[in-house]
Amino acid sequence: MKIRFGKLPKEVLEKTVFKWLGAKRKDVLLWPAYGEDAAIVNVPNRRLVVACDPITGSRKLVGWLSVHINANDVAVCGAKPAWFSSCILLPEGDEKVFKSIVKQIHKAASELHVSVITGHSEVALYVSEPIIIGTMIGMLEGKKYYKTGGAKPGDKIIMTKTAAIEGTAILATDLSEMLSSRIDTSLLKRASAFYRRISVVDDALRIASTGLATAMHDPTEGGLLGGLYELAEASKTGFVVYEDAIPVARETKVLCEALNCDPLKLISSGTLIASVKGSSHERLVRALKRAGVKAAVIGEVLRKKEGRKLIRSGGAVESINSAVTDELWRILSER
Amino acid sequence: MKIRFGKLPKEVLEKTVFKWLGAKRKDVLLWPAYGEDAAIVNVPNRRLVVACDPITGSRKLVGWLSVHINANDVAVCGAKPAWFSSCILLPEGDEKVFKSIVKQIHKAASELHVSVITGHSEVALYVSEPIIIGTMIGMLEGKKYYKTGGAKPGDKIIMTKTAAIEGTAILATDLSEMLSSRIDTSLLKRASAFYRRISVVDDALRIASTGLATAMHDPTEGGLLGGLYELAEASKTGFVVYEDAIPVARETKVLCEALNCDPLKLISSGTLIASVKGSSHERLVRALKRAGVKAAVIGEVLRKKEGRKLIRSGGAVESINSAVTDELWRILSER
Repeated sequence: MKIRFGKLPKEVLEKTVFKWLGAKRKDVLLWPAYGEDAAIVNVPNRRLVVACDPITGSRKLVGWLSVHINANDVAVCGAKPAWFSSCILLPEGDEKVFKSIVKQIHKAASELHVSVITGHSEVALYVSEPIIIGTMIGMLEGKKYYKTGGAKPGDKIIMTKTAAIEGTAILATDLSEMLSSRIDTSLLKRASAFYRRISVVDDALRIASTGLATAMHDPTEGGLLGGLYELAEASKTGFVVYEDAIPVARETKVLCEALNCDPLKLISSGTLIASVKGSSHERLVRALKRAGVKAAVIGEVLRKKEGRKLIRSGGAVESINSAVTDELWRILSER
Repeated sequence: MKIRFGKLPKEVLEKTVFKWLGAKRKDVLLWPAYGEDAAIVNVPNRRLVVACDPITGSRKLVGWLSVHINANDVAVCGAKPAWFSSCILLPEGDEKVFKSIVKQIHKAASELHVSVITGHSEVALYVSEPIIIGTMIGMLEGKKYYKTGGAKPGDKIIMTKTAAIEGTAILATDLSEMLSSRIDTSLLKRASAFYRRISVVDDALRIASTGLATAMHDPTEGGLLGGLYELAEASKTGFVVYEDAIPVARETKVLCEALNCDPLKLISSGTLIASVKGSSHERLVRALKRAGVKAAVIGEVLRKKEGRKLIRSGGAVESINSAVTDELWRILSER
């Protein structure tokens, strides 16, 4: 089978990386599985959360994103990120690119009170643009942790902030020249500042502190709908969400219209999705509001046989029956 | 400044990744520094060792190498490797390549009693050959750990096994077609089986258990001489080693002659170098011999002002005054 750009298909992952896992150590609590972006292991008296993700799609923000994307994956398990390691692979070129990446990592890590503890920097054969692979390690305060696969039919689905925050920042930054002839420059500037909203660490730790969520997940590739598909697949459930209920920033709407792309399928770090017992969702949204975290109820977890669907604004029903290919790959490859 | 293929120069690293390290957490015991390939952090009641390295130079053994190279970096600190995460980046192509990589990781991890706990697999833009970035985490039994920068003038330098084990395996495997017309096929077959010798986990844990070493390091890029330079630089010392005292396998010698390369500057995982107090080196070598680990005394740590030098077999003195560029990059780029 030929494999193509983007995340590998679930069928391929299930035959390989979810199955061939080395030794079966008893201290591993959360193993690799579809939709689970972190691992949890036991050390005496503590639980560690580990996440590892590359940044390959964006060129100007790679360093910044690398820290935040991995911090997000650790935080949605309920743990505070603590230590980061980065592997920076570069094509031959000017030292300035490298410096700028390392500065971005330093800045993002400082804000999160994370230390950069080890890593590797190399000008590598076979790489034509900078690639950063980050690994974040965090510690849980107690024993409780959250995973993607914890949602139950009847739970409400909430999301924080707005859809496609990461995609908005990436497109506004990397395609700024092309876009500046099509859309208002002050809007474009605001859109490129969306990278400041990419962390969901506060959102996740706040939700964890209420104890009300049944699952947490941060949608990345494949956008909000991709994230919902992953949550449902990991939880073995269905879902229904309503386009009208999903907050999308004006900047995101304008950019997506100009590039003819769907904001619900555009890379979406910055948004957190969580499932919460049907009886508790109002309490959770109120608690988040008090803490200054914007959250909206966007739908409900269904039984698997009830399907996975988006109700569009006009009433059309769109089924989400497979992993969502991110709009970003299409846009970048069409350039 | 233009940066070129291979590890980045020390001057560049010192201005960037050794300086911009995010928050200054007090639980970090070993920070990034030249020659230090792992980090050590405190969790309550335990010390964790973390190492992160990519495999980009070899195509057929990437999965296998990724586990062992990172396990080596953790073990030379004195810790047993426990958990591995891998980021696998691929160009578009056949699924078989991916499967073979994951199987290699599974096999190597199983042998080391390591679990594969998280990761990411992606067909990535900007990548023209498979690249695996591994992160290994291990736990120290007690409080004592080893670093590259612990050698003292007057210490003896010992090495285990032979020089350029990794390079021998990579060249014999990846250039097998080209080499088969030049050298004996049974020798080539034995050389390609050198990847079985790449782990230094046993060597390192054995040396650690004696408590006699002052520093441990596993030479990788830049070969044995590159590793010695890193040890000296991290320890702020000089050194003298004798070509005649350095064990080189016959297979390695033949391959290096055919490709006109220096085995002492060829990528060298599989060998462990350690410094040991002048009065204890015989005890250490005897202890290793009893445990079935081959070790040789190859030279001595000097004061920095005494220089860093290799005495060639003929008596010529070669100064090692800067990081060593690996012969592998030259050979692969000349193909």
